[in-house]
Amino acid sequence: MRIIRAEIITIGDEILYGHILDTNSQWMAARLSELGIKVTKIISISDTREAILEAVQHSDSDIQLITGGLGPTKDDVTKTTLCEFTEDELKIHPVAEAHVRELFESRGLPFTEINRLQAAIPSKCEYLHNAAGTAPGMWFNHENRIIVSLPGVPVEMKYLMSEEVIPKVKERLKPPMLAHAYLKTAGIGESFLAEKIAHWEESLPEEMKLAYLPDLAEVKLRLSSFGGHTVEELQKKFEEIIPIIDDFVYAKEDVTIEKSIGELLLNQNATLSTAESCTGGNIAHQITKVAGSSSYFLGSVVSYANSVKLDILKVKSETLSNFGAVSEETVTEMALGVQRLTGSTYAIATSGIAGPGGGTPGKPVGTIWMAVTNGNETITKKLNLNRDRLGNIEYTTKAALNLLRLQLRGIWQK
Amino acid sequence: MRIIRAEIITIGDEILYGHILDTNSQWMAARLSELGIKVTKIISISDTREAILEAVQHSDSDIQLITGGLGPTKDDVTKTTLCEFTEDELKIHPVAEAHVRELFESRGLPFTEINRLQAAIPSKCEYLHNAAGTAPGMWFNHENRIIVSLPGVPVEMKYLMSEEVIPKVKERLKPPMLAHAYLKTAGIGESFLAEKIAHWEESLPEEMKLAYLPDLAEVKLRLSSFGGHTVEELQKKFEEIIPIIDDFVYAKEDVTIEKSIGELLLNQNATLSTAESCTGGNIAHQITKVAGSSSYFLGSVVSYANSVKLDILKVKSETLSNFGAVSEETVTEMALGVQRLTGSTYAIATSGIAGPGGGTPGKPVGTIWMAVTNGNETITKKLNLNRDRLGNIEYTTKAALNLLRLQLRGIWQK
Repeated sequence: MRIIRAEIITIGDEILYGHILDTNSQWMAARLSELGIKVTKIISISDTREAILEAVQHSDSDIQLITGGLGPTKDDVTKTTLCEFTEDELKIHPVAEAHVRELFESRGLPFTEINRLQAAIPSKCEYLHNAAGTAPGMWFNHENRIIVSLPGVPVEMKYLMSEEVIPKVKERLKPPMLAHAYLKTAGIGESFLAEKIAHWEESLPEEMKLAYLPDLAEVKLRLSSFGGHTVEELQKKFEEIIPIIDDFVYAKEDVTIEKSIGELLLNQNATLSTAESCTGGNIAHQITKVAGSSSYFLGSVVSYANSVKLDILKVKSETLSNFGAVSEETVTEMALGVQRLTGSTYAIATSGIAGPGGGTPGKPVGTIWMAVTNGNETITKKLNLNRDRLGNIEYTTKAALNLLRLQLRGIWQK
Repeated sequence: MRIIRAEIITIGDEILYGHILDTNSQWMAARLSELGIKVTKIISISDTREAILEAVQHSDSDIQLITGGLGPTKDDVTKTTLCEFTEDELKIHPVAEAHVRELFESRGLPFTEINRLQAAIPSKCEYLHNAAGTAPGMWFNHENRIIVSLPGVPVEMKYLMSEEVIPKVKERLKPPMLAHAYLKTAGIGESFLAEKIAHWEESLPEEMKLAYLPDLAEVKLRLSSFGGHTVEELQKKFEEIIPIIDDFVYAKEDVTIEKSIGELLLNQNATLSTAESCTGGNIAHQITKVAGSSSYFLGSVVSYANSVKLDILKVKSETLSNFGAVSEETVTEMALGVQRLTGSTYAIATSGIAGPGGGTPGKPVGTIWMAVTNGNETITKKLNLNRDRLGNIEYTTKAALNLLRLQLRGIWQK
């Protein structure tokens, strides 16, 4: 079986200066790996003609995916350089022009010559329609290699990869069938999970490979086959460990915990609200990122100030003065308060010290209380975290969603 | 002045599979840039002899920093490959051996032959002491180039960079000063901004370079000097265009709009609350990501369900039935409602159709209304977006923060 080799090239000085983190390449590498394509190199280079030419001149890969350097201003040279490299000339693409014009007009903005030039692409390349922005994607068939140029804005790159590049790659390169199945787990660390399923892992056939992919407060298990198994066969293999780790498994496919909770709520015809202090609205944000969440999510009260806890959520002032805002008692009243206020079936509440300031000897930075309630039963949990501010917020968000999952599935044990 | 060129090379399949994000390279690039060293390339390659040889054989840089592939197991080949490349042989380094032995003994672990081999380094390289772990760093003076090999564990890499590599680089290479200054703008597209300052940009001296770094609903301008200017001189240069683009500039340093709004609020001794429908809590989340935001942010009501708009925010039911949830009238009442409810000085409200479902011919997906109010004056704006769900949410968040900035600065014009 021939291995298809890919390179990912990111263009832009801001990555080389260390000003921004290159998250595009990881996302693209993961998508290509899923297709069974081997990423041999990920490169970040400068936004200059010389650096771009060097990257495309010397390559033994089958496909090069290039992001960045497609803005309308003159410091972006990717398009002209690729045009030079393929010995072509720029030509306005009528579909791109109509699209860019429409975008500007719909925003009530003038359609200038600079904007119009965004619709110019080398005449021999294939046009990739970018519904998420103004810079078109470009697909070059150059000698025995494919070169694809995409904008660096993550939402535009992802749109073009999903809608244009991946379907075309499948069709043209016919990558080998590489099948993956997923189990998503929460509430158990990587090493404990590995211990529980060690026996099963050792018994896997040679051509199946298990990967532990830990993320914030969760671990994704991926089972890959290089031996022609179907996804269904891999999923069946995974079923063997479900009895051992059932309480930790929130999905048998690669979906987020917020999406999987949405499905549990829909199945129970139930609704949800949140009362957030330290998470500051991030739980509501994660839930509402899921399309269709308006069917089960009613709303949230972000009670950053104590006055909001008292006046809107009706937390008792004695509770706040006796136990403090970061306490089991307060977070319980917050959950019950927002549940009554919105009339939701379930409610989540968080209160904690995200840092870097605000810690005390008794309640250091990273002390977090969470509660979930269905009105009758309220379950609470304390976390002691030691991440930075954003890390504490994001970890708490995931852990609170997992606490709700345990209540929804009725498998909570203190 | 001679520019010192550096390459950063990361070794490991986990990055190429897209399993982990390469954060080491960004950290190292930022450190090198601060020193005035130009990072020309960041590369991730496979953990194989061939890939490593290729990376060190073809390089026109002055210094190559390599991380990863230094573990004790046999699949880590960096050390033996660099030894082969420099035509040298491995030799146990006595200081390294004593250090590794002590680490194992202090943990009560046996000091095996495999552990002892961690202390072996090529005889001609300079030993870099790794107090944070067991794998030593290595400094090779190879022909006219420096090659440095460091472990990939972030805490060990950072220790070695700070304590060993950076001091040695300063002493041996004597890098020049490289300076950057920033202007952050919002509410104007890259091409319009470029047009406004084209004349100034053309007049820049050769050794200053301007970059447009667009992000969601904003553009960052970066002015870099390769000619020994100070940051203050670059900032003074930027001052020349402030009269032309003042209304769009939200910061004269590299900070986020949410941080800069926090400073405006603190200066006015004012507070803020939000009422969010389509943004689902993301505005509150962005604001509360900023440390110290509890000094000015009171809270938010995420009113996903109409019942929450009616019961908590006190939007009139006639308003909802006459104009709909996505309307200037509703979003105005939401802003005033949350401002009254929390007693905040300012309030932001959003209501729109983030998609993919929920659009109608009159109000297609991407129709968004936003309002900001100080109680006396309410300003509103309509957006017509065409991104995906998350893109619409994130764009609206930034645009709403910018609308608040315009009200805070008193420069809003319909």
